Amino acid sequence: MTGDGDAPGFGDITEAAARIGGLAIRTPLLGYPDLDARTGGRILIKPEVLQRTGSFKFRGACNFIGRLDAAARRRGVVAYSSGNHAQGVAAAAALLGAPATIVMPADAPAIKIANTRSYGATVVTYDRWCDNREEIAAKLARRTGATLLPPYDHAWTIAGQGTVGLEIVEQCDARGLRADAVLVPCGGGGLTAGVCLAIAATGAATAVHPIEPASFDDTARSLALLAPCPGTLTFAINRRHAAPGVAVDDDAVRDAMRYAWRTLKLVVEPGGAVALAALLCGRVAARDRTVVIVLSGGNVDAATYCGIVAGSADATT
Amino acid sequence: MTGDGDAPGFGDITEAAARIGGLAIRTPLLGYPDLDARTGGRILIKPEVLQRTGSFKFRGACNFIGRLDAAARRRGVVAYSSGNHAQGVAAAAALLGAPATIVMPADAPAIKIANTRSYGATVVTYDRWCDNREEIAAKLARRTGATLLPPYDHAWTIAGQGTVGLEIVEQCDARGLRADAVLVPCGGGGLTAGVCLAIAATGAATAVHPIEPASFDDTARSLALLAPCPGTLTFAINRRHAAPGVAVDDDAVRDAMRYAWRTLKLVVEPGGAVALAALLCGRVAARDRTVVIVLSGGNVDAATYCGIVAGSADATT
Repeated sequence: MTGDGDAPGFGDITEAAARIGGLAIRTPLLGYPDLDARTGGRILIKPEVLQRTGSFKFRGACNFIGRLDAAARRRGVVAYSSGNHAQGVAAAAALLGAPATIVMPADAPAIKIANTRSYGATVVTYDRWCDNREEIAAKLARRTGATLLPPYDHAWTIAGQGTVGLEIVEQCDARGLRADAVLVPCGGGGLTAGVCLAIAATGAATAVHPIEPASFDDTARSLALLAPCPGTLTFAINRRHAAPGVAVDDDAVRDAMRYAWRTLKLVVEPGGAVALAALLCGRVAARDRTVVIVLSGGNVDAATYCGIVAGSADATT
Repeated sequence: MTGDGDAPGFGDITEAAARIGGLAIRTPLLGYPDLDARTGGRILIKPEVLQRTGSFKFRGACNFIGRLDAAARRRGVVAYSSGNHAQGVAAAAALLGAPATIVMPADAPAIKIANTRSYGATVVTYDRWCDNREEIAAKLARRTGATLLPPYDHAWTIAGQGTVGLEIVEQCDARGLRADAVLVPCGGGGLTAGVCLAIAATGAATAVHPIEPASFDDTARSLALLAPCPGTLTFAINRRHAAPGVAVDDDAVRDAMRYAWRTLKLVVEPGGAVALAALLCGRVAARDRTVVIVLSGGNVDAATYCGIVAGSADATT
């Protein structure tokens, strides 16, 4: 079993799957004839929007807190995040009996602060122009003896996210399929790294493509689950195992969100829709191939969502 | 095998499952911890929004057309519908090589006419104030030798919809569960009748509750998949097998659509959300029980959907 700070291996992912099995949802792998017809490939959707708290982040948080001993759990956990990591940590901590404190910007959308509190976490706000959230979180952790949960650059977190990849392999196996490519939304790289490790262990020639947004406007930046720079562990793993990355622009992301609404009937947030966007734009070859698309999260405020969906949602494309 | 006009039996449903198996999607049975916590029960969602064409109607249409012999298929099929039945028939006919003509009101939303045409069907429009759609469809059928596909009151249609019930039984069995209740959106009663027959055959004490909207305003009426009066076959089956029905009001339906958007991350139309509404309102007992909720369809225009979702979607209830 890998210790704190080490790079994770495949064994850490199978252990994580056993550890979080009773708590995390095993999301289905869904087929959509329209996607197959449109791309000429066999497309399978892995909707982590159906995961607890609406994103894959719950898996990593649940595995991390599950690795803490009873005394450490009692002292609690601290995280800084304005988005999906906050909700994932808050929900996992509540289920595993650890008090959670989440450091969030004071001007974060009220819905995100309310959601985080609804899972029982204490929210500490900071001024994003004047304060340093890492310092605030580190100070809190020192004072209370709580454990700081990094959003992506940690072996336990990566192993938890890797259970997405493990499930993809198992669910493809159950259908007698082997994926030619898996497209994964990528920010800090924790999900990509975990999926890479799970898939590399199969020895199959499956390409794992990290997909990133080409540009963020301010709104998208505050909504996206994506973090601006890769971690040390995640970068090392992804440099070794990942296939070429693809960047998609904002218009393509909006089109993908509308497509998900109209045809997949799934609610997807901007950062969670980038892999679907790359497929629909033809940025990754799909014809005559089996391609898995991860929809990584579905948390978005109603005004933003409806602004995008009602944009040209009644087009029949 | 049941002939045209007879009441269907359980054998017709298992035959339908085999017939449509390669074409219809086996929709998953999804668990959501938030629903369990909220109701005190074990709640499972059967999302027919993920079915081809976005509703269960594809199943009945596919089974019906699959029962036609080669000559009848070549002569084609006719249906009248402004909603999900139109799309279900158009898509099933295209897959099974039958030309399809759909009689739709001239003032139906452009998106619905476009969707129906996108599956390759010919659309014939009528004036809903002056013309009789049944007569138009019957005349078309007589002239061309095409077969008229009734929306719900036919053994082959009911058997196709019954595959939803068969899958619920099999998917519960696979988890070692037996449902105490199944809540089914009900209009003409074809889906309810099919689910009743599938579940009655298990001999289990599972109550199948038909759920209807208490009232329709004009908008809801044009959107809902529900038809105004039950069929002869469906009424006979449901009177014998169904548990008490429940009617839910428009506010409850809108709340359920918002809940599905925010927490389930699924897009549901008004008529498809009535069973979820009945659960969330506490109209059917769920505490300490296993309850299956069918979300029967997800086809709704963007403006209506966003008007409902953005209504008070950022409330944390």
